[in-house]
Amino acid sequence: MNNGAIGFIDSGVGGLTVVKEAMRQLPNEQLIYLGDTARCPYGPRPADQVVQFTWEMSFFLLKKNIKMLVIACNTATAVALEEIREKLDIPVVGVIMPGSRAALKATKSNQIGVIGTLGTIKSSSYKNALKSKVPSIEVQSLACPKFVPIVESSEYHSSVAKKVVSETLRPLKTRASLDTLILGCTHYPLLRPLIQNEMGSQVKLIDSGAETVSEVSVLLDYFNLAAQPRKNKPANAFYTTGSAAMFKEIANDWLELETINVEHAKIGGNERDQT
Amino acid sequence: MNNGAIGFIDSGVGGLTVVKEAMRQLPNEQLIYLGDTARCPYGPRPADQVVQFTWEMSFFLLKKNIKMLVIACNTATAVALEEIREKLDIPVVGVIMPGSRAALKATKSNQIGVIGTLGTIKSSSYKNALKSKVPSIEVQSLACPKFVPIVESSEYHSSVAKKVVSETLRPLKTRASLDTLILGCTHYPLLRPLIQNEMGSQVKLIDSGAETVSEVSVLLDYFNLAAQPRKNKPANAFYTTGSAAMFKEIANDWLELETINVEHAKIGGNERDQT
Repeated sequence: MNNGAIGFIDSGVGGLTVVKEAMRQLPNEQLIYLGDTARCPYGPRPADQVVQFTWEMSFFLLKKNIKMLVIACNTATAVALEEIREKLDIPVVGVIMPGSRAALKATKSNQIGVIGTLGTIKSSSYKNALKSKVPSIEVQSLACPKFVPIVESSEYHSSVAKKVVSETLRPLKTRASLDTLILGCTHYPLLRPLIQNEMGSQVKLIDSGAETVSEVSVLLDYFNLAAQPRKNKPANAFYTTGSAAMFKEIANDWLELETINVEHAKIGGNERDQT
Repeated sequence: MNNGAIGFIDSGVGGLTVVKEAMRQLPNEQLIYLGDTARCPYGPRPADQVVQFTWEMSFFLLKKNIKMLVIACNTATAVALEEIREKLDIPVVGVIMPGSRAALKATKSNQIGVIGTLGTIKSSSYKNALKSKVPSIEVQSLACPKFVPIVESSEYHSSVAKKVVSETLRPLKTRASLDTLILGCTHYPLLRPLIQNEMGSQVKLIDSGAETVSEVSVLLDYFNLAAQPRKNKPANAFYTTGSAAMFKEIANDWLELETINVEHAKIGGNERDQT
């Protein structure tokens, strides 16, 4: 038993999809979230810079004595998970293996699609993860660089979003036997109704973030780190490097929580040398 | 990377539901299975005896240098997992937490049903696991002592099976808001069509065995124990303490594999003292 908090980091609001599932499935746990909204999107940035930003976010949460770190961002997981997991002495969880496992469990046709940011798709992380588990699997990957800006600017209900989603996904729709599509970016579940509509109901959408909660839960139990039910559980805390008001608006709209506490966070500086 | 085998133990053929999913999701892994068919069912036996039998099975597989042990039997998980996990230096996985996690992920109404053997239900293991994660969850448990004998005697396609399933599940059918039912015994997925038919399509059935493969996969990755793809992978091996011919018949019918190799295994003696 360990009543410490679980930390979540993301390039912006996308990782809230993971937090939303964690709140439902692990209500005893205190969650602390940091979104680097000011420097979002991470997708088009060089890998080195994403690694540095991910370290900066990790240090911010480590100072809050978290017992586990979830890199709730596909781009950051792709380039930084291995290094961070190796250097920290708390369990570190990414979103790519959980999404891959869930897709392999779901597919019947052995044809899986992956959509993500430029950085995630260029890293081939999903393709490598899927093929390392099931070498015969066929993977069709597609970068969707326009999706994150739509979500971060709260445009995800608009007609522009519908048009962008439709045009972007066209290359995947020619693959008739593709039965499973990984939403390989934690922002994409906000576009889920539009994506499902474009792909058709026969395609199962895998929310890599939501699947990550399963891995968090397994590791909490395996390492005996789960929190006890308690009346005085500290409130979940949300931080953003950008506008707290805008972050709160999306979080409220989406987590359907009107009372969450969002604070502005200042991070940066090369704290990586301090390890 | 570790190309050793994963061991699976069960009171009989039920654990093959786990093996079937593992073969599909983790085809690089060599699997070794032991079913204690000669002493099945475990459900009505005293806890001490189940613990002893589970140790005997574990020793049989440990001699084959397994890298991970899966207790693919709910009754044995309920009474022996904790002790075995503590004493062995390889990861040991049970079926109760994976089934509970999947049910908590699936339910919308927060009302979950659990069916299992007398031993599993009497232990309250599922109820405790579910409530430890989500204290507000409502759990309705029901022992189904007639189900395992039906499966082990290959009667699961018969009209007798239909009648027994219908009569046994009656108390659960009065719970209108129950939306998720855990098949808390690895034998029950063979009765799945009959159970689904009785409960109605609005109730999601959770196959605790199949869900266990997710935990196996998480721990393989976390501890860097996954096997590499290789052309000369040793064949999966199946052992039973009962009739190899009858075991093979059910395995063939069910795993849809005609070429599996089943051998008779002799276990027993109080090897527990050797730890």
